[in-house]
Amino acid sequence: MSSPSARRSGGRAARKALRAGPLSDDIRPIRPGMEGGTFRPLSDAEILRIHNAALEALETIGLADAPPSGVEILTKAGAILGDDGRLRFPRSVVEDTLAIAAKSISLHGRDPRNDMKLSGNCVHYGTAGAAVSMVDVDGRNYRDSTVQDLHDAARIADQLENIHFLQRPMVCRDIADNCEMDLNSIYACCSGTTKHVGVSFTEPGFVKPAIEMLHMIAGGEDKWRERPFVSNSNCFVVPPMKFATESCEVMEECVRAGMPVLLLSAGMAGATAPSTVAGAIVQATAECLAGLVYVNAIKPGHPAIMGTWPLGLDLRTGAMSVGSGEQALLTSGCAQMHHFYGLPGGAAAGASDAKLPDMQAGWEQMCSNVTAGLAGVNMVYEAAGMHASLLGFCFESLILGDDLIGQAQRVVRGIEVTDETLALDQIASVCLGGPGHYLGTAQTLSRMQADYVYPKLGDRTSPKEWAENGKPDLIANATARKIEMLAKPSQAAFDPQLDAQIRTAFNIHLKR
Amino acid sequence: MSSPSARRSGGRAARKALRAGPLSDDIRPIRPGMEGGTFRPLSDAEILRIHNAALEALETIGLADAPPSGVEILTKAGAILGDDGRLRFPRSVVEDTLAIAAKSISLHGRDPRNDMKLSGNCVHYGTAGAAVSMVDVDGRNYRDSTVQDLHDAARIADQLENIHFLQRPMVCRDIADNCEMDLNSIYACCSGTTKHVGVSFTEPGFVKPAIEMLHMIAGGEDKWRERPFVSNSNCFVVPPMKFATESCEVMEECVRAGMPVLLLSAGMAGATAPSTVAGAIVQATAECLAGLVYVNAIKPGHPAIMGTWPLGLDLRTGAMSVGSGEQALLTSGCAQMHHFYGLPGGAAAGASDAKLPDMQAGWEQMCSNVTAGLAGVNMVYEAAGMHASLLGFCFESLILGDDLIGQAQRVVRGIEVTDETLALDQIASVCLGGPGHYLGTAQTLSRMQADYVYPKLGDRTSPKEWAENGKPDLIANATARKIEMLAKPSQAAFDPQLDAQIRTAFNIHLKR
Repeated sequence: MSSPSARRSGGRAARKALRAGPLSDDIRPIRPGMEGGTFRPLSDAEILRIHNAALEALETIGLADAPPSGVEILTKAGAILGDDGRLRFPRSVVEDTLAIAAKSISLHGRDPRNDMKLSGNCVHYGTAGAAVSMVDVDGRNYRDSTVQDLHDAARIADQLENIHFLQRPMVCRDIADNCEMDLNSIYACCSGTTKHVGVSFTEPGFVKPAIEMLHMIAGGEDKWRERPFVSNSNCFVVPPMKFATESCEVMEECVRAGMPVLLLSAGMAGATAPSTVAGAIVQATAECLAGLVYVNAIKPGHPAIMGTWPLGLDLRTGAMSVGSGEQALLTSGCAQMHHFYGLPGGAAAGASDAKLPDMQAGWEQMCSNVTAGLAGVNMVYEAAGMHASLLGFCFESLILGDDLIGQAQRVVRGIEVTDETLALDQIASVCLGGPGHYLGTAQTLSRMQADYVYPKLGDRTSPKEWAENGKPDLIANATARKIEMLAKPSQAAFDPQLDAQIRTAFNIHLKR
Repeated sequence: MSSPSARRSGGRAARKALRAGPLSDDIRPIRPGMEGGTFRPLSDAEILRIHNAALEALETIGLADAPPSGVEILTKAGAILGDDGRLRFPRSVVEDTLAIAAKSISLHGRDPRNDMKLSGNCVHYGTAGAAVSMVDVDGRNYRDSTVQDLHDAARIADQLENIHFLQRPMVCRDIADNCEMDLNSIYACCSGTTKHVGVSFTEPGFVKPAIEMLHMIAGGEDKWRERPFVSNSNCFVVPPMKFATESCEVMEECVRAGMPVLLLSAGMAGATAPSTVAGAIVQATAECLAGLVYVNAIKPGHPAIMGTWPLGLDLRTGAMSVGSGEQALLTSGCAQMHHFYGLPGGAAAGASDAKLPDMQAGWEQMCSNVTAGLAGVNMVYEAAGMHASLLGFCFESLILGDDLIGQAQRVVRGIEVTDETLALDQIASVCLGGPGHYLGTAQTLSRMQADYVYPKLGDRTSPKEWAENGKPDLIANATARKIEMLAKPSQAAFDPQLDAQIRTAFNIHLKR
């Protein structure tokens, strides 16, 4: 093998000059919504078996604990209420829902450039919740997360190219009142980013004031309904196979208010879902299909995301574990089910069990992020910043996650095969009387921006250069970038008049 | 979502007891040689286009710089020597070779339990070279690698379940004489592990004494030829499209001595290979097919591995970069070409550009390791321990790599879909009058060992437990494990009489 540290001078100056300029949108090597689908852990026959098992589970086991309103909505749609209080779903009810459910939906950002279109195998990466702690890398400490942390997370995510949406990653533990917490979560997120925001309401009664705030931010109900830029994560089930009564009522409110919903079924394989990957997918699929019937019975075609989020478990201890190979399979298999139904879908990937942004965090985050992307998950939730099996959120990890996801996206983009990329002419001209290397060829120069993803903080220097640079520490560099990003004013801040109106109408905890 | 820290008592004691015992071979969740192939970045049509481009490159461009012996061998096989000194390969020559080349080969270990069978999509992970430095994590230092380091690497790899072979990861820089270095590399590796060993001879003249040593270790030439436990990495080309004259002569010696060869083409995309992923694969495929013709012309059916190792490059600087998403695609695409030809193949994955085993190292190592496995690379070289774009090797990283590869292998294993794993009966019995959770079910207990890969050093404790444990550091724990592993005597040590014979016949630098 030739020496890895070999440097060639051919065209280096030209390449550096070219690379220094900003990338125009048409030649960005990666972008939100790239197509996955080249990783298919399940065969078509296996997908069909999971589908049939899910329908059978809905038909014969059904779901308990629907609220009275849900019983009414679902029985009207054809579900059958048993003497045991469980709602069972004949196949035809599910099939009728699949015929009318929204197949391709948009999740809007306050800035339309941040809109996401969910369909087919297209992939978006973002944060999700709900951590209760912040990870301070300096002192290796876990501390309660606050509304300021949430706002800061939004501001950082707003500046990271490869974080495509912000589902609120942590709980504002400094706000004791749950309604105020929900309202302040919206404020903290939306004033920090113009990307699509996800929240999760604690109680049905909190939806109404939240929608009032969203109408204010949008500039009126019509504008909100036209481009709803906040969606709700509805943990509408308590696996296995029980509706979460209150969360269902929240969901009804959200649907009526025009808010897209994530039908979130987060069973833990081995505890609240079967321990087998296939079984956990069956149950999650069944549960989310029940949710889909529910939503479409309220409002046909309402934007809903199949949130099959089976999570892993360490069976030795019974504790959640999200950084495993099993997690990568749970999530990727679910993506295939979404595609089978042609429904927009999301699942959890990219979270780590590690307490700090260390090597374990890196491998765990990449393992499920790259496989989820290759499987074509429309919405990869928990993709960055998440530690300690969803208990802790870390800014440095979020910032490094941008680099990590960039590389995952490069893999998702795949291999282009054209006459140009096959490069036969180029090989001939380089070898037959040419320079004997490709560094300075027109093709190399012309594609070096469009084909390659360069890390922002990932270090590619030689050991010698690295030593000359003072052996920079990855985490320290991420901290420096964090400070820099948070020093800038938020690009998503509300205009002062609107801000004053919101602060008059609501008790906003975040300091001006 | 239910609280991630939720603990359930059901069956915990039983699970812990069960898990404490060692795993019998039949229920190990992962093992060497598992089948990949579920990640297919190239379509069948694209594979065919790459194949045709490679054959056209061989036919029209050919390779320069074959040694006189190679010219004779290859022209006899049907290659045509041009006036420009290049050997060109008509399609039929390649096709005839493909008909006789070994399709399924075994790479033996000195211990038969470590044998590897290379065929189809089966996947093995191991180290490869050739670093010139060791990474000392304590002082964040790079220092010259020594023969003792190489021996220690072998001893550590011998004890790591998920490291399936040891290609010598670093150069013994404390041995000035190249012949002595090659001989001592064999000694240091083989006395440290009974897994298959890969070396790389510097000069053709060094093969003969090395084979003498191997005969001694094997207990005779016949025993060596029956189960050759060392293979040679032949960098038989200097990309683009030139034979490496001396290395070809080494290869001829190895083939005649019954040593399996890795036909290694390590072009750097953008420097010594086209910058496009497809183009780099075309060139590597062409070069390795030329090597295959060469080997089979010497000895039809001789065990040879398609070593299409295109490596990435940071086009901003012209420096090698192996931790990128592009690298994952280069390697995975090559795997599809191996499968297209039905040939045993290997490629590079799992190396990092990071200087230390930090978060970047984790994500880079996982990105290409998991995708290479899913693509079904038979031999994943550079899978653990490799830093600084192949310049540095790190023991702590090697040890953590065992955990990392374990999770990658779990993904490769995939999703089993059977009536049992679909778990419909179990869902019914848990939900309908059952306990409402799966922690204590017979199915969960019976599969908790066979289905789940548990990390050895990866930390899954809660933040609270972690703090109670003194906030253990991942790298410090790896260092402790390293010390523990190296404190044990080598299980692969030669018996004293053999050792004395070898030390009489050769100048062995390693202290007794």
